[in-house]
Amino acid sequence: MGAAARQITAAAIASFDACPNPRTRELLQSLTAHLHELIAEMRLTRGEWERGIEILTQTGEITDEHRQEFILWSDALGISMLVDALADERPAEATESTVEGPFWAEGSPLREYGESIAEQPDGEPLWVSGRVLAVGGEPLARAEVDVWQNGTNRLYAVQNPDSPEEHLRGRFVTRDDGSFAFLAIRPTPYPIPDDGPVGQMLASTGRHPWRPAHIHVAVSAGGFERLTTHVFDSASPYLDSDAVFAVKPSLIKHLVRHDPNDPSRPSGVDGEWSSLEVNFVLAPTRMVTAE
Amino acid sequence: MGAAARQITAAAIASFDACPNPRTRELLQSLTAHLHELIAEMRLTRGEWERGIEILTQTGEITDEHRQEFILWSDALGISMLVDALADERPAEATESTVEGPFWAEGSPLREYGESIAEQPDGEPLWVSGRVLAVGGEPLARAEVDVWQNGTNRLYAVQNPDSPEEHLRGRFVTRDDGSFAFLAIRPTPYPIPDDGPVGQMLASTGRHPWRPAHIHVAVSAGGFERLTTHVFDSASPYLDSDAVFAVKPSLIKHLVRHDPNDPSRPSGVDGEWSSLEVNFVLAPTRMVTAE
Repeated sequence: MGAAARQITAAAIASFDACPNPRTRELLQSLTAHLHELIAEMRLTRGEWERGIEILTQTGEITDEHRQEFILWSDALGISMLVDALADERPAEATESTVEGPFWAEGSPLREYGESIAEQPDGEPLWVSGRVLAVGGEPLARAEVDVWQNGTNRLYAVQNPDSPEEHLRGRFVTRDDGSFAFLAIRPTPYPIPDDGPVGQMLASTGRHPWRPAHIHVAVSAGGFERLTTHVFDSASPYLDSDAVFAVKPSLIKHLVRHDPNDPSRPSGVDGEWSSLEVNFVLAPTRMVTAE
Repeated sequence: MGAAARQITAAAIASFDACPNPRTRELLQSLTAHLHELIAEMRLTRGEWERGIEILTQTGEITDEHRQEFILWSDALGISMLVDALADERPAEATESTVEGPFWAEGSPLREYGESIAEQPDGEPLWVSGRVLAVGGEPLARAEVDVWQNGTNRLYAVQNPDSPEEHLRGRFVTRDDGSFAFLAIRPTPYPIPDDGPVGQMLASTGRHPWRPAHIHVAVSAGGFERLTTHVFDSASPYLDSDAVFAVKPSLIKHLVRHDPNDPSRPSGVDGEWSSLEVNFVLAPTRMVTAE
């Protein structure tokens, strides 16, 4: 019986021996070997296999253009962050990357320097400003800063048919001195979508679904590696138990709270507000050497 | 960077430390560890991760009540047969099991001894007869023999909206001496569904999608382990390269071809026909010992 199991594993791995693409062969043989090892080590039962098929099927059913439960699994099992870490060969001075998550949307509106990303009243105003720099300190003009964040209702615009489509997202182009600025809202923690298979897994394993307060940022400039990262609020709960393992200490920033009468108050802001100054440092595109 | 990757893996595994159910904890920690090991060992790139998410998403999209692409992945990677092998603690004299596959359907019609499972003319008649026995040789009366097979159009009835729903499937109850008989069609090889992600994988890795000719059988009787198996035609091609790794030598049977004038010809049969005699030997239900 142990011998029968080993024979099946060997046959499944050998079935890819004639694969013409060496990387595809390597990936499928390694995938097969590791899945078989997992199953044999666990002595997975037929009932557990059935449950696994059911969970995958439910994951497929809940996934659509607005909900990506497969990415959520990847995030919740730390896989997205692992892939991020393996790819990260940036110099130490460059801003660290973190997961993109499932809520980035293509084609966010291009907005002016200092413009608000909120399309309707929401939360406490947060003035975000800073510069995009190259490693070494050179300011990068005409870099693109793509930002997106959740509302106080815990949702991103792409999750919420009732909010304006472009709410709380936007693209900003840096000025000659590399500077950018925009009006966001002070971010609040939110749970990852927990009404599907990933949520069931979290609940049954005693894990919470919360992410610490953050704003997503993707920065791109010609000749530099695209940077996908977050800025985390240092005052947020869950910084040490992010449901998707995305916190890196260098990405935690202090958000300064201001009095309504503070003279540096940006125009259009009433009441309490906060500010955040943050620079993004890009690494030059890696040279790809021919094999 | 290597250290960052190891930290993420450790954090993801540790996130399940407080899981109340020890088996769930063990399964999720082992799943996480093996997936991380696979990804780190392969140095999976962001592009490959995206392709993986895309393949899983397409697998979800093509899966519905008539098509189970997740089970097809399990079959094509040898996982279904591995789970079968791990569960198989039957005594050596018992008939060996093999994969159920994605085409079994609940509630096949109960048919009379000797009745045909073909609801419309199809292929060459095959008279299948035999007995259901206990290990040791005792005949089992009133055992249920549930059979299903593909048509000459390569499809099972559940795959084909144009064929009668109950075509080529049926349930038979054994007589007092454990005997059963039915009229099937001589099975023909067929490709597993190859117009989806699994088919793309097979094509890109140089694997063929074919399964050797077989009839599916599931046998159940009170007090005995349910047996899910196949009978393979010894004259079929692909016996040594079944796309789902399900062939076991003991399940390969000789189908006897008969002359149209053979006096043993079953009623209702015209022209060339074949016969197959096969017994199914069941093992008693295992005692579950309290922990």
